[in-house]
Amino acid sequence: MEGDPTLRLRVFNLNCWAIRYLSKQRQERIRLIGDMLRREGFDLVLLQEVWSEQDYSNLKAKLGGCYPFSYYFRSGVIGSGLCVFSRFPILDTLLYQYSLNGYPYMLQHGDWFCGKSVGLDTCWDGGHDRFAPHSRQLHAEYCREKDGYLPHRLVQAWELAQFIRHTSKAADVVLLGGDLNMHPEDVGIRLLRGWTGLRDAFAEATRFEGCEDGCTLIPNNCFTVKSELLPFPLGIRIDYILYKAVSSFTVKCEEMKTTTGTAPGTDIPFSDHEAVMATLHIQRQGQAAGANLGTAEPTLVDVVTEARTEVGVGLGAARRQRYSTGRMAVLALLLLLLQAAAALGTLAGLAAGQPFPKLSFSLLAFLAIGVLLLATCLHLFHTIEVKMLQGTEEQMRMALRVLQERL
Amino acid sequence: MEGDPTLRLRVFNLNCWAIRYLSKQRQERIRLIGDMLRREGFDLVLLQEVWSEQDYSNLKAKLGGCYPFSYYFRSGVIGSGLCVFSRFPILDTLLYQYSLNGYPYMLQHGDWFCGKSVGLDTCWDGGHDRFAPHSRQLHAEYCREKDGYLPHRLVQAWELAQFIRHTSKAADVVLLGGDLNMHPEDVGIRLLRGWTGLRDAFAEATRFEGCEDGCTLIPNNCFTVKSELLPFPLGIRIDYILYKAVSSFTVKCEEMKTTTGTAPGTDIPFSDHEAVMATLHIQRQGQAAGANLGTAEPTLVDVVTEARTEVGVGLGAARRQRYSTGRMAVLALLLLLLQAAAALGTLAGLAAGQPFPKLSFSLLAFLAIGVLLLATCLHLFHTIEVKMLQGTEEQMRMALRVLQERL
Repeated sequence: MEGDPTLRLRVFNLNCWAIRYLSKQRQERIRLIGDMLRREGFDLVLLQEVWSEQDYSNLKAKLGGCYPFSYYFRSGVIGSGLCVFSRFPILDTLLYQYSLNGYPYMLQHGDWFCGKSVGLDTCWDGGHDRFAPHSRQLHAEYCREKDGYLPHRLVQAWELAQFIRHTSKAADVVLLGGDLNMHPEDVGIRLLRGWTGLRDAFAEATRFEGCEDGCTLIPNNCFTVKSELLPFPLGIRIDYILYKAVSSFTVKCEEMKTTTGTAPGTDIPFSDHEAVMATLHIQRQGQAAGANLGTAEPTLVDVVTEARTEVGVGLGAARRQRYSTGRMAVLALLLLLLQAAAALGTLAGLAAGQPFPKLSFSLLAFLAIGVLLLATCLHLFHTIEVKMLQGTEEQMRMALRVLQERL
Repeated sequence: MEGDPTLRLRVFNLNCWAIRYLSKQRQERIRLIGDMLRREGFDLVLLQEVWSEQDYSNLKAKLGGCYPFSYYFRSGVIGSGLCVFSRFPILDTLLYQYSLNGYPYMLQHGDWFCGKSVGLDTCWDGGHDRFAPHSRQLHAEYCREKDGYLPHRLVQAWELAQFIRHTSKAADVVLLGGDLNMHPEDVGIRLLRGWTGLRDAFAEATRFEGCEDGCTLIPNNCFTVKSELLPFPLGIRIDYILYKAVSSFTVKCEEMKTTTGTAPGTDIPFSDHEAVMATLHIQRQGQAAGANLGTAEPTLVDVVTEARTEVGVGLGAARRQRYSTGRMAVLALLLLLLQAAAALGTLAGLAAGQPFPKLSFSLLAFLAIGVLLLATCLHLFHTIEVKMLQGTEEQMRMALRVLQERL
């Protein structure tokens, strides 16, 4: 951008749904994604749910020519699933893992094992611009009516917003691409956009082409679970490209596109999510841009208050679970002590004979040990949960104080 | 600082060693610390190892008058132990938890449970300056000769350095206070200082008063474990105040002090660590300061290479542990399957009689289940460890590439 005051930046974002052994036609889809990325030659490609490092390596080998720079973020047991391919040098990376990410015992949902996180790259276009693209994924929503994960997702949205605020201060342009697992009007998205000043490429785009309402999880896609989309005949929009200019730049979204159920030229989709593609027009301007907040402050106060209330509800639930798991651990310990006393009594010859059959006695002891261990682990887990929810509530309270002082 | 181009900033840092039920004379020492902080009126107070929220609340109540702003960072099972008291408004906070922090089964060391982390506050002195004080603590060193935690501590030092680099770009002055659990010449400290450009208040101070060589863990202190300090007759220096100016400011350390074994005016120390106090002279200058790196680049290349080698050694160890725990889990599973087959065989009447006594049979099954669970948990844990060490090694490789390109 040295000399040329404008830059057209083409960004691609996709939740690839590439879970080894579980995702359908994974290898074929990864091949199709690679072919398309090589053909289209985007400037920045943000991918989520590339859980297998082998898939990343295959993509890297295929895309080396047109995307010389790439990075795979490692975290959690399985990984973060996040990777970035870039036409511009990646100067630096930072991974931030959310402090809360579901429950380890909800095996069927699996979020806890995935170490969901946000990855930050600093890229440089060789001129004066530094981009800070963030690729990320929030905790999935499994049941909209009774959404037990909402407080966790709000903590994540808040931590994401804080991370972006703190790490993007010296960037020229901030980009966030990812599957945020939230509908556009949800409190988490309003909080994220309001607190960071990020703008939604779909809402701002001059031209749009793709699924109606920009939906990215649609009934037309053969991999989506149709029953989950019953209340939403058009589908839902949960994958986003968000952006903002920080210093003396302006960013406009010229064009936004989504895929529409199948990959162009084939009969299968790239993923169960639709890909989103934005063309951003970045222009240097004389003076530094001002205001960092995305929403008028009184509205923002309402949004933060609403989020804080939800976090408070989650805090109540976490406290109750901490209490009940603690009580269960104490009961198991008491049972064990009782058994130990009985066994000692028998050994010391106090009791006339063996009060229980040996087998039931030892089975009961093992059961008590098992319950004690499990309940203790859960109690520790919910203790951490309470602490993190308290911390987030406290931070939101502080943010509200600062906002209200400004008003 | 509006109008006045200089500011004297007095910073206090102490590892308080305030573990409920374990630390000696905890409440008395917290009271002494509070009295002294109220008397001295520092500008910024960074405390570590305040594990009990009650102690924080007591300090907050006592110090409300002279330090109107404070924050307690919550994390982990027990907490982060970090808190900050400030004369300036705290505008914003962010907590970063290290991805590796010891082993959950090393109960005697306990680091894993403490959620060691770095806390960032943004403070504002009412004029133009924004400070970004970071309070933090790294994984403790338990045995210098055979230091199994070195790779973890290096990952933490690297993550800390990256966190500071990414979050301090828009700050005027960056401060880092904490118990870093590393000697001044250790590779972790050289990495941290080199990669962030932070300067050591002790080394830069015009005047110094306190323990010889600035030591903060000394044999004179009645709470230190004398046997650990045998190889170091003067003591060791592991608590630091580091600083740098980022934008158009200069910072000089006018004076540095440590306590010397006992709290002034009493016969007991504040903690097993000595407190460090620095008076910084912050001056606005016309033009923005340049270079961000603290060490000449060829030296920095050596430091990062050394750190990367150590992380590689840790990676090898973690891979071996992942393998051996995985093998143990598989063996336990095989034993269980064998038992299940034997039991089914007996039920189906294939065997002539009961091959084992029932009690031993069920005890063995429970043992196998226990080993299977434990080995699986450890295997998952070491899988995460391998991923994080790999990630850090990859980031260091990237940093080396960028550094070498610059040379």
